[in-house]
Amino acid sequence: MTDPVISVDVMGGDHGPEIIVDGIDTALAQRAGARFLLFGDEQIVRPALARKPRVESASTLVHCEMSVAMDAKPSVALRQGRKVSSMWQAIEAVKSGAAQACISAGNTGALMAMSKVVLRTLPGIERPAIVAVWPTVRGRSVVLDVGATIGGPASQYAQFAVMGAAYVRTIFGNPDPTIGLLNIGVEDVKGTDSVREAAELLSRSELNFTGFIEGDGIGRGDADVIVTDGFTGNIALKTAEGTARQIAEYLRQAISGSFFSRLGYVFARPAFQSLRQRMDPNAANGGMFLGLNGIVVKSHGGADASGFASAVNLAVDVANADISQTIAADIEKMQVLLDDAWAQTLD
Amino acid sequence: MTDPVISVDVMGGDHGPEIIVDGIDTALAQRAGARFLLFGDEQIVRPALARKPRVESASTLVHCEMSVAMDAKPSVALRQGRKVSSMWQAIEAVKSGAAQACISAGNTGALMAMSKVVLRTLPGIERPAIVAVWPTVRGRSVVLDVGATIGGPASQYAQFAVMGAAYVRTIFGNPDPTIGLLNIGVEDVKGTDSVREAAELLSRSELNFTGFIEGDGIGRGDADVIVTDGFTGNIALKTAEGTARQIAEYLRQAISGSFFSRLGYVFARPAFQSLRQRMDPNAANGGMFLGLNGIVVKSHGGADASGFASAVNLAVDVANADISQTIAADIEKMQVLLDDAWAQTLD
Repeated sequence: MTDPVISVDVMGGDHGPEIIVDGIDTALAQRAGARFLLFGDEQIVRPALARKPRVESASTLVHCEMSVAMDAKPSVALRQGRKVSSMWQAIEAVKSGAAQACISAGNTGALMAMSKVVLRTLPGIERPAIVAVWPTVRGRSVVLDVGATIGGPASQYAQFAVMGAAYVRTIFGNPDPTIGLLNIGVEDVKGTDSVREAAELLSRSELNFTGFIEGDGIGRGDADVIVTDGFTGNIALKTAEGTARQIAEYLRQAISGSFFSRLGYVFARPAFQSLRQRMDPNAANGGMFLGLNGIVVKSHGGADASGFASAVNLAVDVANADISQTIAADIEKMQVLLDDAWAQTLD
Repeated sequence: MTDPVISVDVMGGDHGPEIIVDGIDTALAQRAGARFLLFGDEQIVRPALARKPRVESASTLVHCEMSVAMDAKPSVALRQGRKVSSMWQAIEAVKSGAAQACISAGNTGALMAMSKVVLRTLPGIERPAIVAVWPTVRGRSVVLDVGATIGGPASQYAQFAVMGAAYVRTIFGNPDPTIGLLNIGVEDVKGTDSVREAAELLSRSELNFTGFIEGDGIGRGDADVIVTDGFTGNIALKTAEGTARQIAEYLRQAISGSFFSRLGYVFARPAFQSLRQRMDPNAANGGMFLGLNGIVVKSHGGADASGFASAVNLAVDVANADISQTIAADIEKMQVLLDDAWAQTLD
């Protein structure tokens, strides 16, 4: 395993380049061998780098005239940012082979649009997906798509299943991940036509498909891979994050309520710290785009330095995984099934 | 306000009539004036009733030959259970005026099908919805639909908004509830066509529409009424429930981890009990069907006695509210807007 080079759009995110540089610094403490290609405005990034000599010496800075605004429409970002923007150039570094993975905390829609245009989808994959790692009571699962698509045909769900399974096999090292389809009931008759047809398709595939799972099955760890479309997946992910934040607030209120509860907190502090770590959204930061000819990691725009460091760690860990080749090989195996299903839609 | 009569399908639910009777008993401690019309198999319900004299004296039992299986398809339940089933007869009691509200912990699809057939939708309402009360950091909101529909046109979202606002006005007593549309981003360009058209429609209505909200905005209390379709809403609701259960498990593990954390727990016990209460899914049990000529409350099939009591309390509290009249009047006001929107789909 060679030390990977990660390309970074230093201009993306809500908090500016300093947080990004601090995040890389934190990540370097754990992933010392990583090297970075930074893309951004020299005048802004240089001073941020000067504060962190470890990052400076592990990085090459490429000056970019332009950065994509956080609220730009994807179409506008693509038109104005093609070639010249820090985001585009960071992605292009993956295509050229200068980097093994790219990270941005910038505009999600623009990043998806540029990634698709620069890297293109893998053969047999219609649409890329954003995959999220979801902590569960049993460990962790992946959920996809969490925001790249809206709806879609059964074949798209089947492709997402292949992509998610490849992720769990190559990155978590689980050789035979179980696959569940997110639905509003576990009975055959429930759900949209696409979801029911996808279940049909998956049950005839070589994947370890275990059936429908409901929203409360995700956190219970009912399947290693949970497949859904980007509309439902995004709302499920954000609802879970919101619920975790809400309960953290309840907990804070409960603890600060009386002298005895504050005293109790003092004794139980290490327990609370471990709880806080398990609930920390920063720890799971970093959605990966799957289905492209190259690796792009999306950090939350609002992530702090420790959150960005999690995304960097993810990028470093996946840079050497042959996830794209795994997906391509598995889709190839499923191609006859997918072709048959597609042909039936023409009948 | 007269003491309401509540009709109960005693045969519905995963745990059988005893839990239902126990739930009514608990509810009677808080809603002493309520009376009950119980529908079920006399041979099974009589012994359960004999254990709870308070319920027995507040109830009239109507023997029914048949009960709807929890896993029956709605179409089969409707065919076999029409007139004769405990579920059908409990709903019919609302139509006849013998009861002011109906409760069942039975098969959700069957209950929705029978409710729609027996009670029919209010004038101007295309589809009924299941509304859930969602605890938030600010208090409580309602989310609809959480399971009766899959997708739907913009006009359906607008009708759900009217229904949700009527609920919050008549039951929570909030005269001008804010309304948010659940989406995967707050920008105008995001989401399905229906959701974007619904935003257009709602912003021209007299309702207090505040725009799109994302999944994490529900628990934050960003709007009093959150409108979505039943597929997305059901998955959001169950994902939130699953996350709450997951964190409760983390908390349990954290507290039992060491001697000191257990000691801390002893001091902070009242705080944890208040937290547990706020996280208790039983406390918020009871989804109401909205948009019908009558009130039907759906309890979770798996609810325990205290959960069923929450559903009974809800039914008693809404039995005297003029929610159906409020919905009918508000839809009337919006009718020109809805008609125009519908006519545009013909262009």
